[in-house]
Amino acid sequence: MKINIILYDSVTALDAVGPYEVLGRLPGAEVHFVAERAGPVRTDTGHQLLVAAASLAEAPAADLVLVPGGYRPPIEPGPVHDWLRAADATSTWTTSVCVGSLVLAAAGLLTGRRATSHWMTLDRLPSFGAVPVPDRVVVDGKYATAAGVSAGIDLALDLAGRIAGAEAAQTIQLGIEYDPAPPFAAGSPDKAPAPIVDFLREHRELVVGL
Amino acid sequence: MKINIILYDSVTALDAVGPYEVLGRLPGAEVHFVAERAGPVRTDTGHQLLVAAASLAEAPAADLVLVPGGYRPPIEPGPVHDWLRAADATSTWTTSVCVGSLVLAAAGLLTGRRATSHWMTLDRLPSFGAVPVPDRVVVDGKYATAAGVSAGIDLALDLAGRIAGAEAAQTIQLGIEYDPAPPFAAGSPDKAPAPIVDFLREHRELVVGL
Repeated sequence: MKINIILYDSVTALDAVGPYEVLGRLPGAEVHFVAERAGPVRTDTGHQLLVAAASLAEAPAADLVLVPGGYRPPIEPGPVHDWLRAADATSTWTTSVCVGSLVLAAAGLLTGRRATSHWMTLDRLPSFGAVPVPDRVVVDGKYATAAGVSAGIDLALDLAGRIAGAEAAQTIQLGIEYDPAPPFAAGSPDKAPAPIVDFLREHRELVVGL
Repeated sequence: MKINIILYDSVTALDAVGPYEVLGRLPGAEVHFVAERAGPVRTDTGHQLLVAAASLAEAPAADLVLVPGGYRPPIEPGPVHDWLRAADATSTWTTSVCVGSLVLAAAGLLTGRRATSHWMTLDRLPSFGAVPVPDRVVVDGKYATAAGVSAGIDLALDLAGRIAGAEAAQTIQLGIEYDPAPPFAAGSPDKAPAPIVDFLREHRELVVGL
């Protein structure tokens, strides 16, 4: 299973690293981090934290392509969209985390497809032709999308089960001790205190840049 | 709030990136990734994925120090232990994820303290003088330790609440949409199917390297 995770300027690190930590432990997994240019990539908090091992031009063909979210993700036509369309033509799975679904949709890959996104950007999916579904993980054919940031871990475990079976996925889950116990119940707009939901809605530009 | 996250050869990426994604969003947070040598650091899966911005010698003083886990973490005496003892002398919080607690304990910082670790390495804590507690997050004074890999996210949200208050922590939680929904209930040895628990116990060397 060859996996390409695309990085770009202002990517959200956990969107990429959560799925990598799960999918990279599949038997025979081969993960490549790719970007327009190989080398260090700046995250949304301004850190030169992640490294792309290969440029898009050098990226090997992959069975699974994943687009993480970030601040101001590449939703304009350009090399990332061209590359994604070519990668999608031969992929078994085309996937995203957070606003990565807007990138896939803007590249024309989710037209008429059910998809999710960060709760603050679900309403942007229809403008790119996708059908928004407010679930944590949405699978429509070979297109699998996750909600915001941390949802990439749940997406990856779901995919691990589909790709290698429940036992393999559960072995990975136990290996990374993914038995989440958040100290607060504020992880979705349905559960968080209303003033916090309102604050983030009013500052959407600051959080996702669009 | 100045935060130093220490990286080392064969670190587990999610152990570092989960807490960074939470703590880095605290108001006024300043995160530094540091390592014996500045530059790319190899993760436990062999990827040159993460970058240390500064060497231990260059690392600024920090209020919070975090030691992520990894494959064969630095439990032998050496520069990492020396640095941790000096950092701990002025820190407000000294923290770890996964087998990072073994590193803190081996450096002499958890003697007589309650601490947690990856479920497979809890039994190693007493040999370094710490008192093992099989909880996801354990706080004893200024020492806060998390269980395996993904538990670093829960640790960081707990710390965010203590440092900046529940509202700030909940705002971060909603921003990263941390409303976990694992597709399997296999994240702890109490919940996972017994054959999977046994398999990992028998292959502990492969998973944590000690």
